[in-house]
Amino acid sequence: MPTSTRVPNLLDLTIDNITPNTIRINSQCQNPRLKYLMERLVTHLHDFARETRLSTDEWMTALNFLVACGKISSDVRHEFILLSDILGLSLLVDSINHPKPPSSTEGSVLGPFHTHDAPTLPNGSNMASDPEGEPLLCICTVKDTAGRPVEGVKIDIWETDSSGHYDVQHSDRQEPSERCVMVSDSEGRFWFKGIKPVSYPIPHDGPVGKLLETLNRHCWRPAHLHFMFEKEGWDHLITALYVRGDPYETSDAVFGVKQSLIIDIGKADAATAKEYDFPEGGLLLKHEFVLTTKEETEKLRDENAMKALAALGLRMKLVDHLPVPDLD
Amino acid sequence: MPTSTRVPNLLDLTIDNITPNTIRINSQCQNPRLKYLMERLVTHLHDFARETRLSTDEWMTALNFLVACGKISSDVRHEFILLSDILGLSLLVDSINHPKPPSSTEGSVLGPFHTHDAPTLPNGSNMASDPEGEPLLCICTVKDTAGRPVEGVKIDIWETDSSGHYDVQHSDRQEPSERCVMVSDSEGRFWFKGIKPVSYPIPHDGPVGKLLETLNRHCWRPAHLHFMFEKEGWDHLITALYVRGDPYETSDAVFGVKQSLIIDIGKADAATAKEYDFPEGGLLLKHEFVLTTKEETEKLRDENAMKALAALGLRMKLVDHLPVPDLD
Repeated sequence: MPTSTRVPNLLDLTIDNITPNTIRINSQCQNPRLKYLMERLVTHLHDFARETRLSTDEWMTALNFLVACGKISSDVRHEFILLSDILGLSLLVDSINHPKPPSSTEGSVLGPFHTHDAPTLPNGSNMASDPEGEPLLCICTVKDTAGRPVEGVKIDIWETDSSGHYDVQHSDRQEPSERCVMVSDSEGRFWFKGIKPVSYPIPHDGPVGKLLETLNRHCWRPAHLHFMFEKEGWDHLITALYVRGDPYETSDAVFGVKQSLIIDIGKADAATAKEYDFPEGGLLLKHEFVLTTKEETEKLRDENAMKALAALGLRMKLVDHLPVPDLD
Repeated sequence: MPTSTRVPNLLDLTIDNITPNTIRINSQCQNPRLKYLMERLVTHLHDFARETRLSTDEWMTALNFLVACGKISSDVRHEFILLSDILGLSLLVDSINHPKPPSSTEGSVLGPFHTHDAPTLPNGSNMASDPEGEPLLCICTVKDTAGRPVEGVKIDIWETDSSGHYDVQHSDRQEPSERCVMVSDSEGRFWFKGIKPVSYPIPHDGPVGKLLETLNRHCWRPAHLHFMFEKEGWDHLITALYVRGDPYETSDAVFGVKQSLIIDIGKADAATAKEYDFPEGGLLLKHEFVLTTKEETEKLRDENAMKALAALGLRMKLVDHLPVPDLD
């Protein structure tokens, strides 16, 4: 039994007093950040029910939908990330956490298909094993906002095969394919062979697909290549490059596309073909990624947070870069 | 591809414009009620992330928590109902949907342990098979708000055994126990033998239990008996009777207790003992339940909804008793 005198008497709770009482009993929590998260969560959850006069059937349908999302999730499928993606939450959380100065590469959604078993390959390797895919040579550099190359960045790269499926979506997957890890060299360069990305539907055989259908939304993503950049001291960059002219360029089911991330695919000339051991006239993608330091991003994020919270009329302070109510 | 011109160009989405764009693309949905639910859901979800500046780690922790809730759920365990219960949402949804005129029996939370396989037993039956339980004779009546008996009501009754576990929580469960279905007779009566209810912890070996622990909340419910009343034309009543004096009477982990539902357990006198074939001096619970008609409840619910929504400044109309924006 709780002994603190701050705990309210939980009796005769009603539409009007359930929210402050739930918040008060959760306030026994010692962690101010979690306390704040729970306070906002309970407030929004209850306001949602009050503003919609949520019916018992709708409530039950929603809870069963959530069970179904959990049931279909596995080591290689995260239906709740997908749900977060199609509700715009993933894009929002990424934007909050990884603000970008104008000169740096913008982020995009992670999606549910990154894995941790991709092989680290040397520059020039072919990460694709799909014979139907159209070979694509990618020549990239990683720089800082002052234009200096960044060496030793770990880069995760992943894309679908030519049928629009990630390797993990094939039940007979033996080993990673169309994915690899590279490390930028002393000039910030990394280059590899993949295949031309194709548009594809996000997994729509589960509850999220059914929701999209009910909402009369399509489930397609425009063709893209995923990239994730990691190096101690640098802001973790999750992004993707989108092929210009895709029919879903302006209607991505998961809201990931940014103008600055739309790229043109060209053709390898004779010199490039020779240098990179690639057929002349083959498809070529050249791109420069610009990373920000962890410090730059944290400073920008903290400033943005305090500005946005003040604009919302909230009096907050940052503890470990996360807002909590400023009660002093 | 969507062809409607109302669909926005989904490009360069930011912290500030993701919400209206998500709402707009969801507005392709033809069902005005679902459209409204999604609009409120997306707004609250995004506002939550903006007001908390939700971190990527917190977001991932939350999504993994939801997967875990789905994974532990089964035919006999619904972790999302439990989550809804401890967040006060279940109480709120019940209060919205089943408003009670002053003279009628108040509702309480359903909880996750109602089953559909309880046997229908004749009056006087013993629904308990736990030899450790203290026998309890329950003599009840069902009336309408004018005091007239209601015949032919189907009543689901369920409680834990003396160890504080429902039958479905025992992995070796062979058949239903401490639960039954009864039907009220021509005088609105039903009576049965159960056992004295005990306080018990809600299932706390899963993610919801862990959350309660993290929040420094206990997981106990005060001793109670569940009742559910169903009859065509009458409002579905889900309620429970709580034994007065329980140590958790004012701190129910799922917010279910109402003063009007707290009852005293007495002792069977000689006449009662003889009439009901029960030991003299044995524990006796007598209670009168008062049902409202479906019509009464719907009228009250509709009135409450329109009043509450107007107070929130929302211009709504009811379609099939559910609010949608009034755009006329």
